[in-house]
Amino acid sequence: MVQRHPDTLTRETSAGELLGAHLASLSAQFLRALRSREQNEAAASTALSASARRISAALHTYEPLVDAAWARSLRTELAWLGGTLSLERRLTLQLARVHGALHRLAANAPQATDSAADVPGDGTTDPATRADANAAAGPDAAAGAARAPMAIGAARAGALLERQLTLARTRAHSATLSAFGSARFHAVADSVALLASDLPLTPAAGASAAGTLAPLAERARLLLAEQVALLPLPQAGYPHDHHALNATLADAPDGTHAQDAPWHRARELLRVVRYAQEVLGETAPGGDDPARLRTASHALDRHREAAEAARAVAAAARTPRITPATAYALGVLHADQRAEVEAARQAFGRLWQRAAAPTPPTATAPAPAP
Amino acid sequence: MVQRHPDTLTRETSAGELLGAHLASLSAQFLRALRSREQNEAAASTALSASARRISAALHTYEPLVDAAWARSLRTELAWLGGTLSLERRLTLQLARVHGALHRLAANAPQATDSAADVPGDGTTDPATRADANAAAGPDAAAGAARAPMAIGAARAGALLERQLTLARTRAHSATLSAFGSARFHAVADSVALLASDLPLTPAAGASAAGTLAPLAERARLLLAEQVALLPLPQAGYPHDHHALNATLADAPDGTHAQDAPWHRARELLRVVRYAQEVLGETAPGGDDPARLRTASHALDRHREAAEAARAVAAAARTPRITPATAYALGVLHADQRAEVEAARQAFGRLWQRAAAPTPPTATAPAPAP
Repeated sequence: MVQRHPDTLTRETSAGELLGAHLASLSAQFLRALRSREQNEAAASTALSASARRISAALHTYEPLVDAAWARSLRTELAWLGGTLSLERRLTLQLARVHGALHRLAANAPQATDSAADVPGDGTTDPATRADANAAAGPDAAAGAARAPMAIGAARAGALLERQLTLARTRAHSATLSAFGSARFHAVADSVALLASDLPLTPAAGASAAGTLAPLAERARLLLAEQVALLPLPQAGYPHDHHALNATLADAPDGTHAQDAPWHRARELLRVVRYAQEVLGETAPGGDDPARLRTASHALDRHREAAEAARAVAAAARTPRITPATAYALGVLHADQRAEVEAARQAFGRLWQRAAAPTPPTATAPAPAP
Repeated sequence: MVQRHPDTLTRETSAGELLGAHLASLSAQFLRALRSREQNEAAASTALSASARRISAALHTYEPLVDAAWARSLRTELAWLGGTLSLERRLTLQLARVHGALHRLAANAPQATDSAADVPGDGTTDPATRADANAAAGPDAAAGAARAPMAIGAARAGALLERQLTLARTRAHSATLSAFGSARFHAVADSVALLASDLPLTPAAGASAAGTLAPLAERARLLLAEQVALLPLPQAGYPHDHHALNATLADAPDGTHAQDAPWHRARELLRVVRYAQEVLGETAPGGDDPARLRTASHALDRHREAAEAARAVAAAARTPRITPATAYALGVLHADQRAEVEAARQAFGRLWQRAAAPTPPTATAPAPAP
């Protein structure tokens, strides 16, 4: 069963028909991805997670049109599957992220033979910092011990994170293989296959698509707007004077920052809104520009990635018996990632406020699957 | 001898007369500050340093009008004096800066009994970070050891910096007292006193003030403009996407960052320009708006203060036998101060580019002494 092209949408198309067509299409994507596992397992896992998220979002937004208990049960299973399958890739990206950051932070680290920076010449010899260095250096002042110590710490921090994240990634890979071999997986794959032929609709699904789906999508947009209203978005036009690293040392024992949660929630609600618009083929009145939503979505993805990386770095800093130089480098790296959390928030805020007014209806083509 | 009010400037006033009036006024300020030492030593040191800087800047900018060898010799002594007297205050400010930053960074640090941040509910349980925490925590996972470890590290870092900076400040205070009791100081105080009556002018100083001083002040402005042209000022209109912490772990063994030097140079040249304009009473054609120059100057002062604080923190991180938690907190603090270095650069860039066009002549009153 193929998805009906939006051009064939007629007054007589019921909500159930349109939703069913969409879910059937997603089901087919899921099964194709499953079959492709043998050629490219990583790509298959990514595609399976993407399909699972979309199916779950559709069942969430349009729940009044289907059997609610069935939908919630299937969403629980899809969340398990998506979470398991996406973990390895997230860890791969995280390792690349922290390596890239360390490279940026330690770029051109000088050797001990580099001459000190030229002190400009009104005769002031900057004794403040020299006194500090002398007071603090102690036995470390020997040139050998002082040879680019921070570069050594950065290298060790990189090696530590490599070990820990690679170990986590290996475990994630094993979990993925176990999942694929499990009865639980076969059950959810069967459930997804049945979406194409056996969708348990409610009587409400018999109403017209235009009159039924659009209000539900609108409700998702309102929930997003309410959540975004809770976020501390900067005043438009104010320069970025905010201290990006406030509360960086105030993470909870599990490494999370309490103020991140509202942003993570907004990210999820935004994704639900984007997927809800896909069901309608983005021809519904009041829909937002999909390109803008996608860019805003990416900003919140970066927000989460940076927050998770910061957390992994903080966790690494609690590894027993690391040297102070390594811990110092991890502190700088953690701060760098928290700064990227803040930068992502700023980017989202600029995107969101630039398009604060509701966009008029537009007959754009459906967005390609990310 | 009082400084002539700019309203009494006539075509017949020579450069030597105007320069001499200005230096006599600065000399009087210096001597008043010296006499006030007994009432308030800190304020006296600040005022003495300020006078010393201004006298030195005037002798630098308008050197063609005075005996060059004498001027350079006096400037060397004034630099020694100003550097010595200003050190204690700089260290006081530095300690306040790092304490304020640590407070900001560790604000509302939670206790171990705080519940973990609410993970939003699409069923994804964020296993990536949980796996990381489990992989890394090891024996530290015991609740007691994990009780707000980063808050403990922040507290220790604060205590360490307090000890080291207070020690440095005590030494600076002793150096100040020694300076005041030294023959070297008495000699420079005598030289400053003689400025009012015994200024060794050259024949060039006999030319008109307007025709002689203004070109020399203009030369100072050109040197500043050339230096600012070397700075990597952001493109006007681009959002601040730049990674603020690039190369943070790439400081030289003495703790300096090579890319800071051009900014420190610009700061000095800007100060020279401001002081040069004071000689002219800011009625010279082509002078820049003194309020704008002062604000730009303050941004570069903050730049230097943040860079020096970052350096002191890096030095503290090399103290033998500190714990990893303390080193981690110092790394975060160092990164925070480097972020402030970058923010100060951004602020300067915005100020400078907003007034890129030369300002027309204006009959503003002389700027009050900062």
